[in-house]
Amino acid sequence: MSLHDEMVALGDRALAGARALATLSSAAKNALLEGMAVALGTHRAALLAANARDLAAGRERGLSGALLDRLALTDARIDAMIAGIRQVIALPDPVGELLAQQVRPDGLQIDKLRVPIGVIGIIYEARPNVTADAAVLCLKAGNAVILRGGSEAQHSNRAIGAALVAGGEAAGLPAGALQLVETTDRDAVRELVQLVGRVDLVIPRGGEGLIRAVTEQARVPVIKHYKGVCHVYVDASADLAMALAIVENAKCQRPGTCNALETLLVHREVAAAFLPELAARLFALGVELRGDEQARALVPAMKVASEQDWYDEYLELILAVRVVPDLDAAIAHITRYGSQHSDAIVAQAELAQQRFVREVDSAAVYINASTRFTDGGEFGMGAEIGISTDKLHARGPMGLPELTTYKYIVRGTGHLRR
Amino acid sequence: MSLHDEMVALGDRALAGARALATLSSAAKNALLEGMAVALGTHRAALLAANARDLAAGRERGLSGALLDRLALTDARIDAMIAGIRQVIALPDPVGELLAQQVRPDGLQIDKLRVPIGVIGIIYEARPNVTADAAVLCLKAGNAVILRGGSEAQHSNRAIGAALVAGGEAAGLPAGALQLVETTDRDAVRELVQLVGRVDLVIPRGGEGLIRAVTEQARVPVIKHYKGVCHVYVDASADLAMALAIVENAKCQRPGTCNALETLLVHREVAAAFLPELAARLFALGVELRGDEQARALVPAMKVASEQDWYDEYLELILAVRVVPDLDAAIAHITRYGSQHSDAIVAQAELAQQRFVREVDSAAVYINASTRFTDGGEFGMGAEIGISTDKLHARGPMGLPELTTYKYIVRGTGHLRR
Repeated sequence: MSLHDEMVALGDRALAGARALATLSSAAKNALLEGMAVALGTHRAALLAANARDLAAGRERGLSGALLDRLALTDARIDAMIAGIRQVIALPDPVGELLAQQVRPDGLQIDKLRVPIGVIGIIYEARPNVTADAAVLCLKAGNAVILRGGSEAQHSNRAIGAALVAGGEAAGLPAGALQLVETTDRDAVRELVQLVGRVDLVIPRGGEGLIRAVTEQARVPVIKHYKGVCHVYVDASADLAMALAIVENAKCQRPGTCNALETLLVHREVAAAFLPELAARLFALGVELRGDEQARALVPAMKVASEQDWYDEYLELILAVRVVPDLDAAIAHITRYGSQHSDAIVAQAELAQQRFVREVDSAAVYINASTRFTDGGEFGMGAEIGISTDKLHARGPMGLPELTTYKYIVRGTGHLRR
Repeated sequence: MSLHDEMVALGDRALAGARALATLSSAAKNALLEGMAVALGTHRAALLAANARDLAAGRERGLSGALLDRLALTDARIDAMIAGIRQVIALPDPVGELLAQQVRPDGLQIDKLRVPIGVIGIIYEARPNVTADAAVLCLKAGNAVILRGGSEAQHSNRAIGAALVAGGEAAGLPAGALQLVETTDRDAVRELVQLVGRVDLVIPRGGEGLIRAVTEQARVPVIKHYKGVCHVYVDASADLAMALAIVENAKCQRPGTCNALETLLVHREVAAAFLPELAARLFALGVELRGDEQARALVPAMKVASEQDWYDEYLELILAVRVVPDLDAAIAHITRYGSQHSDAIVAQAELAQQRFVREVDSAAVYINASTRFTDGGEFGMGAEIGISTDKLHARGPMGLPELTTYKYIVRGTGHLRR
């Protein structure tokens, strides 16, 4: 069978799985998720053995320590996957929610009802825990899921997938509702994102290369988690002690995350009072600063920021720093270089707060708070499948409701259009 | 300037227009729409003259009577465009609506606020009135709009666009907020749908060929109005008098629309009681029937339906008819051949109604009513930009709220993530 035919067959099975899932009650869906959680525990030895193979292959291929760490499964990480499934079980089922209801003047009743999307493809890179996390969120929302993980984690992903399917099917998981793309053929991604009529949505999770490849090849809808080039703008009206704490938190609390700070913008009126103190604090924490000319005039120990620095998502302890003449320049910088993810203003002046919130076109816009809060858990969603930097369908953290769509149910008593 | 550079420049102007629009009050947006409405009236002679050129060219190229009719502008149609703008002015502004609000345990306040999408591209075929209708809906929702109409209507579209821009700019329309793609180069569509970072959404409105071309080329999100292969299923429990009226209405009231009936499915237990009477009624109205073997056994005057008939959107007085053994077979037929637009069951049995509503995965699912109600006006939206057969972002009729997205506004008092 050709790769194309193989992927079409996979899509057909997913469609059948989605139709069966859509008729399950919340209790039935929770029961199959619990079966999956239990199975991860009983398959623990197999998961660790499979992961050892991936780690050995990774070391042989010279993967970096950071990548090997992302790849590694441990008892604690397996326990975290199991706990994650139970958290999703505890979340309310979004399916069936009545979003709107109206009775038209002629008596026609129109309900807008939340329903599953259908078949969702998840394309991700080296973290094997995504296999479980993504699958259970999609299934809880009533969607069939097709998982395509990175080749570095292929044995781990297969072992986790096998455990989830075995535990799920024993507890009522419909056939085809959860599938892994088993082939490591790179063209499988292209086939997957072109399965129009069989795949309703693809969510890529990974680096810029993956996102670009998916975007350029896709013919089915895609929701991207592109990148987080997040800004903090310290206004002339800022409480500078608050600004120090927010910048430190946004940059240093967990620098490898997409909601971490990458570029600091400081109003020139407060730059002299703010930047030397900030630099002392961040240097002590091991942060490298890269500044424009005005910032470096105040803190000569800063490195020189190039044009490319304004675009970069460092994901490590590096911070780009720019002094701006006013709020307009700060907003213009964010509009030009930002990734529409999370951007903050530190200001006491209400007018500056209002303009920033209105004019900065990002998924999350902050006033006097750290950008690090852009997260499904922090937003009260319980769990997230990613953070959308797109504007269509879902923006910012995507929880269970963002994995659903709606349909209209129209009830008449023989109503005809005149 | 190359076509690519030309389109990039157009996208940059649209982005600037979108930013300016996003800061306008509802009153300011309504004022510029009113300026457009007035301008259509004052430019009436120019519109009719431009349209006469398109009609002459169309006749020369041998366009069908139906296409020439769609292309034609008359005083009445110009009046309808003007009235349409005033209807949109009267609609509530969706922008700024507070969709959700929460205060986290640590006091962080998270608002979810409705905002414009940004830049929307509309690609459409011969109807010149779409130029005004689509533009004003996008603008009212705070979006910049790029219009690309069919070459058959190029003079009409340019004249309408010029009137709208002149009237709008005199009333405060930001530069770049409304633009037409002036070139008739066919590659302009490909460039438009690949303007990642400048165009946030493309909505194609037209035939299957246009939709396919856009879907295959697009790198920006697309919401499609694909086609309406709508079904009515007459259950064994149906009130047959009601079913007769619904089938007649769904097929005949306006057969050229996407929500008109194309395929009738009849439960075999009522086929003998229903089909001969229905056929007599529809034949009298000039409807051609194409049936499967069982239907033709009851109504020999029916033509033979081929496999292709189940897929076809006739958009004229033709109806495909199939006798099915049960509800499962009806649902399976709709799942296989339908377009997820609008499908109806006529049934008195509640269980059949419930199963149909749950298992038919269409934008609008009807119980005992005509499919013809799937329409922005009938759904109380006031106006629609199209009917989405996609599942992401918007499904079914798309009004003003469906032309918006949201962002999170997060307010703290120095909140840090722990």
